[in-house]
Amino acid sequence: MADIATQKKLATLMRYHILSSTTKAGSGHPTSSLSGVELMVALLFGRSGTGEPFFRYRLQDPSFPNNDRLIFSKGHASPLFYATWAAAGGLDWKEMQTYRQFDSPLEGHPTRRFRYTEAATGSLGQGLSIGVGMAINGKYLDALPYRTFVLLGDSEMAEGSQWEAIQLAAHYGLHNLVGIIDVNRLGQRGETMYGWDIDAYVDRVESFGWQAVPVEDGQDVEQVAAAYETILAIRDRPLMIVAHTTKGAGVSDVANKNGWHGKPLPWDEFEKAVAEMGGVPDPFTLELAEPEALHPPKREDGEAKPLHYEKGEEVATRSGYGNALQRLAPAMPNLVALDAEVSNSTRAEYIKKVAEDRFFEMYIAEQNMVGAALGLQLRGRTPCVSTFAAFMERAYDQVRMSRYSDAKLLFAGSHAGVSIGQDGPSQMALEDIAYFRTILDSAVLYPSDAVSAERLVEEALKYEGISYLRTTRAKTPVLYANDEQFPLGGSKVLRQSNDDKTTIVAAGITLHEALAAADVLAERGVSVRVIDLYSVKPIDAGTLTIAARETGSIITVEDHSASGGIGEAVMAAIAADPCPVHVLAVHKKPRSGKPAELMAFEGIDKEAIIEVVMRIAG
Amino acid sequence: MADIATQKKLATLMRYHILSSTTKAGSGHPTSSLSGVELMVALLFGRSGTGEPFFRYRLQDPSFPNNDRLIFSKGHASPLFYATWAAAGGLDWKEMQTYRQFDSPLEGHPTRRFRYTEAATGSLGQGLSIGVGMAINGKYLDALPYRTFVLLGDSEMAEGSQWEAIQLAAHYGLHNLVGIIDVNRLGQRGETMYGWDIDAYVDRVESFGWQAVPVEDGQDVEQVAAAYETILAIRDRPLMIVAHTTKGAGVSDVANKNGWHGKPLPWDEFEKAVAEMGGVPDPFTLELAEPEALHPPKREDGEAKPLHYEKGEEVATRSGYGNALQRLAPAMPNLVALDAEVSNSTRAEYIKKVAEDRFFEMYIAEQNMVGAALGLQLRGRTPCVSTFAAFMERAYDQVRMSRYSDAKLLFAGSHAGVSIGQDGPSQMALEDIAYFRTILDSAVLYPSDAVSAERLVEEALKYEGISYLRTTRAKTPVLYANDEQFPLGGSKVLRQSNDDKTTIVAAGITLHEALAAADVLAERGVSVRVIDLYSVKPIDAGTLTIAARETGSIITVEDHSASGGIGEAVMAAIAADPCPVHVLAVHKKPRSGKPAELMAFEGIDKEAIIEVVMRIAG
Repeated sequence: MADIATQKKLATLMRYHILSSTTKAGSGHPTSSLSGVELMVALLFGRSGTGEPFFRYRLQDPSFPNNDRLIFSKGHASPLFYATWAAAGGLDWKEMQTYRQFDSPLEGHPTRRFRYTEAATGSLGQGLSIGVGMAINGKYLDALPYRTFVLLGDSEMAEGSQWEAIQLAAHYGLHNLVGIIDVNRLGQRGETMYGWDIDAYVDRVESFGWQAVPVEDGQDVEQVAAAYETILAIRDRPLMIVAHTTKGAGVSDVANKNGWHGKPLPWDEFEKAVAEMGGVPDPFTLELAEPEALHPPKREDGEAKPLHYEKGEEVATRSGYGNALQRLAPAMPNLVALDAEVSNSTRAEYIKKVAEDRFFEMYIAEQNMVGAALGLQLRGRTPCVSTFAAFMERAYDQVRMSRYSDAKLLFAGSHAGVSIGQDGPSQMALEDIAYFRTILDSAVLYPSDAVSAERLVEEALKYEGISYLRTTRAKTPVLYANDEQFPLGGSKVLRQSNDDKTTIVAAGITLHEALAAADVLAERGVSVRVIDLYSVKPIDAGTLTIAARETGSIITVEDHSASGGIGEAVMAAIAADPCPVHVLAVHKKPRSGKPAELMAFEGIDKEAIIEVVMRIAG
Repeated sequence: MADIATQKKLATLMRYHILSSTTKAGSGHPTSSLSGVELMVALLFGRSGTGEPFFRYRLQDPSFPNNDRLIFSKGHASPLFYATWAAAGGLDWKEMQTYRQFDSPLEGHPTRRFRYTEAATGSLGQGLSIGVGMAINGKYLDALPYRTFVLLGDSEMAEGSQWEAIQLAAHYGLHNLVGIIDVNRLGQRGETMYGWDIDAYVDRVESFGWQAVPVEDGQDVEQVAAAYETILAIRDRPLMIVAHTTKGAGVSDVANKNGWHGKPLPWDEFEKAVAEMGGVPDPFTLELAEPEALHPPKREDGEAKPLHYEKGEEVATRSGYGNALQRLAPAMPNLVALDAEVSNSTRAEYIKKVAEDRFFEMYIAEQNMVGAALGLQLRGRTPCVSTFAAFMERAYDQVRMSRYSDAKLLFAGSHAGVSIGQDGPSQMALEDIAYFRTILDSAVLYPSDAVSAERLVEEALKYEGISYLRTTRAKTPVLYANDEQFPLGGSKVLRQSNDDKTTIVAAGITLHEALAAADVLAERGVSVRVIDLYSVKPIDAGTLTIAARETGSIITVEDHSASGGIGEAVMAAIAADPCPVHVLAVHKKPRSGKPAELMAFEGIDKEAIIEVVMRIAG
């Protein structure tokens, strides 16, 4: 237990390293770090009046399940983050000098390359959602007493995602979640909306069902510790510490001054600051309190039941997704499903039939849903995240960021494309294949029947990365046998002859149009190859290259924008040895109408395919 | 002025048409419409105690600047929306029978194909932001007394974007903005987070600085009118009406029952409902009150000043964007700039030097920023919307939806790609070209120097659609003469000979790498063609096709994910007559480091280009 004098000495030491690491790097956010120093010192090394620690952590075992969790939602305060862990002995103080260098794990904003980073941050307004996921895991799944702490900037409280997280945390009564708002008044280019109006934050947060504790002077470790005492008593709701702090605290020349965001001190200012703190402080570290040696329940995967579809049976692929959750949940005790208030449409609700406690209603707040899913995954769960594919776009920045936490997440977007029909363009995702393809090392999967939908869920859940499953609203006939396998990066050649005039590549609903076209064409004596590109990424370049060579041309058909979709994925796959590719895709602004009308309007139906084939073959 | 009895008769008439149109269509959201009937009747046709109307509108002139505005954020209540306008005589009651048919403007969710739709909605949580933009325009730009009304669903209050809009509306004191929450308790798959807890909404909204008025019975036109009276007195803040309503109100069999979301009544239930309302009601309409004949100030475009760069001068393209705003604002009185608290980085702040009143700080709340920009544009302004390209992703769903409002908006994303360096992956947009390309009829522009940046802003502002300008953090030398023109769909061939071994296509920062590579290669006696693809969409297929034919191969270089970017755009442009394309793009997870280190790591720098060229030419 560190006394107040030691805590103050530590704060000075941390300030020194915040300043020296950023000045040496020539970039970074020292002033945003300085305001939060005491918030971290009191959290990690302060104690309650009765000597209880606020934060418990096995330094040698960051993955220990009952560790408390610390997330810097204000990721630009990374110098403070690294200094905090250096203070606990998690890295050598000297290592801070590698800040922002190419080979250093101490990146400009925390990523998982640093061993104490719970989740990569830096796109503001995401940390609290991740904390929500970790707290849900602690309270509802692992049943462990660890707490999740999230350091928040005042500027980032403007992000709507924060309020999504705040409302959901209250809804689920996450007493194990603690937010800490570092109200240093100044944003990047000037004052925040509320400046130092601490009550504005307290009132808003309390109106959403949290307890909020203001701290008059967030640079005073004793005052901060007094606020943290609330943690020990709270039982029914999340807690927000709202601390009045000073940006650049401890350095007179920059403290509370505009124009110093994201700027290191020049060397002369740095020297002056060191003099102000009484010279270069001696390095030391303090010990963290140990968490209770508790473990979560053991969860071992069992064997999943087989499939039971009949060929030709009409089943929507979204139902295939729901059926897969229902079938796999008993065999996969880590599987959890999250949905944004449309689980009856996405069919995610099917999991409730077998594991009601592993379904989490996230309401119409997609950003927080994705952040929370990441938090759950980082605590060992296997989240399946669903909503309409169009509305998943709401959380694309969270999807992007999850990649930098090395996330393993399954996103399932239903109601893709114009084929949803009457509901109109607002509900039609035409951008999702393109976006998910851009995510590094992602898998983009697009089943055309219930069997492939179920198998692709299995494959996605085995995949060590981000996978996206695109499902269709309409029912489509089962094409495949129940034991058919669908490895990532594969495809299925469904029609083939030695005399194919061209190759049609399709997936999802358009595959059925392609097959219907092939049948008509066969009657006319025109053979075409038909490929089910169920794995849009990774893509089966081998099969496509052979098809290109053997048939001389490819027609792609997709219920998606022409940009970044199946057509371009195919072109990229055969780029070294290309053939002409004709892209049938959504080119015109869609509207409400019958699915078949929309497919015809966009030229992605059977008739459109036949027309192009006849042009090529004729 | 309609008496209460007439208003009630009208409510019944609207109910009848809500039910008959949806039952005929076989889809739609009648129950979500029924709960809001009285909220609309009292708004459009009710009066204050002193006889003042709440809503004023020239029915024959939807574009009249001083019309009040009515936005259905809960776009799925479109049957109510159409019935409301039918009640005012804006469409024939019979026309409602065309609901959701392919040729009807009465789409499943409102789009601009219906003449009284202010903005397309249907992706929830977007209408209030659009209203914020319209209200900002009324209060700060047009100085007109019109009010903007937004009907909100209770489920959609879970969207963070709502709270972004709520906080910003309070910040700008938008007394001319009125939200109406239709608290019918039931979402799509069950109860909302707060059910009928009206106070939960009132408290939250008031804590954010609005006035909030609860309505005990939102099915009572007199109570609702009494709440609307508040509008007439409010002067300093926005107003939220929070009405307790009943989903399916007026139809006993479905009222307040779960399981009836998004479902039309079957014909037998419909007949029963008609009997309950006393048979088929006689059609009639009521007149809307006329707005004051006020007009906004006249604004005519003048001539913009010329450019003054020197070739070789180092200027970041983001500064080119800022300079363009500063140069064009005096000549374009409709131009406004919005930024998400990073205007010193995006350089949007430059506009403040010449037109401080046309810069709107939107704080770190990108979704609301984009929605508000749409609202401003729909009221005649020309918004330029900027933030880091990475954080623009936060608002991609709003970008997507703006397309269905036929928006004309310029989005400027700065700090694109790994070349930003030290700040690390959270700040690097690698997905933006792909996403913006998917938006139908969008323009995707990527300048490589200050001249092209400025010219492309000019082109974008002339473009009748959505345009995206991708700018770079680093300074780059000016390549072009000040009078050079950059038409959309064009490109610049910067190196060319009769003996080109291949073609390098690049844009933005990689163009400079390509030029440097070409110079080195020229010294080695290897000629290459170099094309500046400043217009990624529309794309200069002609020039690319010629290059493909003449040089036999193309190398693309981009600081972006390989998927959906420049490489695939080029492949798509030459798909009918392809040549091998080698894509140099971001393939590995980036990190913090020096810009040059990152460019080398990803293989998108001069050396990587030379290596590929030598492989082809060797």
